[in-house]
Amino acid sequence: MNADGPVDHAERVARAALSALVEPGHTVLMRRVDAAGAEATLRAIRRGDTKLDPNHRMRDRLRSGQVDGEEVLATADRLGIGYLCPGEAGWPVALEVMRETLDAGADAVPPPLGLWWRGEAELATAAESAVAVVGSRNATRYGERVAADLGSDLAMAGWTVVSGAAFGIDAASHRGALAMGGTTVAVLACGVDVAYPKSHASLLDRIAAQGVVLSEMPPGVRPMRSWFLARNRIIAALSAGSVVVEAAMRSGALSTAGWAVKLSREVLAVPGPVTSALSAGCHDLVREKGATLVTDARDVVDAVGTLGADAVPARRGEDRPFDRLSPVHRRLREAMAVGRTTSVAMLVEATSLSAATVRAEMDVLAGAGWVEEDGAGWQLPRGGP
Amino acid sequence: MNADGPVDHAERVARAALSALVEPGHTVLMRRVDAAGAEATLRAIRRGDTKLDPNHRMRDRLRSGQVDGEEVLATADRLGIGYLCPGEAGWPVALEVMRETLDAGADAVPPPLGLWWRGEAELATAAESAVAVVGSRNATRYGERVAADLGSDLAMAGWTVVSGAAFGIDAASHRGALAMGGTTVAVLACGVDVAYPKSHASLLDRIAAQGVVLSEMPPGVRPMRSWFLARNRIIAALSAGSVVVEAAMRSGALSTAGWAVKLSREVLAVPGPVTSALSAGCHDLVREKGATLVTDARDVVDAVGTLGADAVPARRGEDRPFDRLSPVHRRLREAMAVGRTTSVAMLVEATSLSAATVRAEMDVLAGAGWVEEDGAGWQLPRGGP
Repeated sequence: MNADGPVDHAERVARAALSALVEPGHTVLMRRVDAAGAEATLRAIRRGDTKLDPNHRMRDRLRSGQVDGEEVLATADRLGIGYLCPGEAGWPVALEVMRETLDAGADAVPPPLGLWWRGEAELATAAESAVAVVGSRNATRYGERVAADLGSDLAMAGWTVVSGAAFGIDAASHRGALAMGGTTVAVLACGVDVAYPKSHASLLDRIAAQGVVLSEMPPGVRPMRSWFLARNRIIAALSAGSVVVEAAMRSGALSTAGWAVKLSREVLAVPGPVTSALSAGCHDLVREKGATLVTDARDVVDAVGTLGADAVPARRGEDRPFDRLSPVHRRLREAMAVGRTTSVAMLVEATSLSAATVRAEMDVLAGAGWVEEDGAGWQLPRGGP
Repeated sequence: MNADGPVDHAERVARAALSALVEPGHTVLMRRVDAAGAEATLRAIRRGDTKLDPNHRMRDRLRSGQVDGEEVLATADRLGIGYLCPGEAGWPVALEVMRETLDAGADAVPPPLGLWWRGEAELATAAESAVAVVGSRNATRYGERVAADLGSDLAMAGWTVVSGAAFGIDAASHRGALAMGGTTVAVLACGVDVAYPKSHASLLDRIAAQGVVLSEMPPGVRPMRSWFLARNRIIAALSAGSVVVEAAMRSGALSTAGWAVKLSREVLAVPGPVTSALSAGCHDLVREKGATLVTDARDVVDAVGTLGADAVPARRGEDRPFDRLSPVHRRLREAMAVGRTTSVAMLVEATSLSAATVRAEMDVLAGAGWVEEDGAGWQLPRGGP
């Protein structure tokens, strides 16, 4: 195979083997894989290539039979874990930009060799309109509340919530999305069958049941400290924008924002009390790094695109199909009376949603031009959406 | 007299009379005064000019003898209250920009006829490096704490703190400046001898003792609701930038920021919890109006100029005299050893300042290039500041 074609079986096996051998985010190696393919790269390592493997550690592990691509794939298969390689059906378009950065020197954001995954959602579809909500592990109650609200409200608006399944902000944003029946994607620094942190085992299972748990590291592997930072580049790449909810200055939680900048993705930050050290990193992003200040999901959607990216109604004469609205929005839109005002009460009656949810979601629909607010409720716009 | 010359006695009397007759911020009237002088404007009103005085209310008050400029000036004099007119010695240069906006149509920010004042500081000097710190009357404890810290730290860095002496943020920022022995200016919407709010009588006296209390309204006049918004334009004009610490959406506290924009002055906003309605106006300023997010006095100084505007050391080859540093900075700078590191302890010993103050102020000096930080303290820069 060559790097541009679809991935054949031998190439998949080589990528699986490499994923068990190398550190994640290895730019030099990924450049070689991109140019020569994974099979040739693996052969070079086996022969003792000193550029890719200066101290022959990878070579020795290969020769001793500790790493075998076929075996890794077979194990994953038994565990119900898939392996998705670049160019294969289901590979998220959003990740293509990583390959394009390989020539960017120090600003390279190397793509993963492939993604190990488990879960019920289709990753490619989920990543079509995805936002990362990330932040500090030892978050404050304020930060966790904001993250949960963002997770819920973004999910309600049809966005996939991407995060890292860590304590604090990550967990709160996943949970917010899960509570609304939304799609959420967890990107791990360990195998997707490894519960890390341990107490998040059931959270990870719930994420898999409603979304996807994925990792560039093969099944069974426990995380290394440095891998978390490398992992963050996949969170940034999968997402139209990354929202940092809380982060201290120089916190690892800021690395996702750094990757997003390198990938020309939006960086968004939630403000907090200036007296809180855990908001200092967010304020710094806004003040020094040009991040967009966001206070709620509406601000996020305004900054990264509108209403599920593909689901937005026409703003510049394009025709966007009604049936691509999120289910909730479609129900609300279908419940609208023609030619007269539809009230909150009527929408509650028709959809069984709560009045608060109706108001919040009609706000989103109004913001996107699907309906128009009047004093007593909403009307369909004169000229159609 | 003409509008460009110094103000003679008759013109002062006419301005004093007009200040007791007209609403503050009367653009049409100020255009006439600017073109024809206050005496001619007053004569036109007395004759029944319908453009300036459509319902002859001002004319009737003049003819009935209710308003007399000489009398207003004499009363003020008895009360120890001065009257400062544009073009007179002591008129703050910063206010000149208001006159230049008179041709700007709806964006005009009309200058005051003059300023009634009491206090120990020289207004022109105080306004040379001044920052407004303003915000909501029903502030939170968080907001008041931040305002007090800003007031203190700006005062310590040699800046005059301008505000409106209202409850909440205004009072906290004045008090912060007073606590540090700094200069602070209160701009009132009533006479400078009127305590409004009543419980701020002693605060106003303390401001006068350490700074200036001023108003465009003559002594004895109680405030009208609409005057507060007009008053805010003088706060904005006197200041290199206006910091909004807390303000709800559509709060009157935001009007100072609006005036600052019209006057091409910096608008700065302090973030807070996104769950606090009193920070929503600040977040909106940053997100929608291009305000600069600031978290402390250092951010403010970075945004509006450095270290007392005139006291900054050369950054682009200019030579700034050492003796224009603020007294605190001069003392610290003079206590520095030549050719070796000066520690916090040595500076505490030499200046009798607290260690915390020494650190904070040395930070400011270091930021402006007067000293260089090393691990153990500070050194004088090799090539001089």
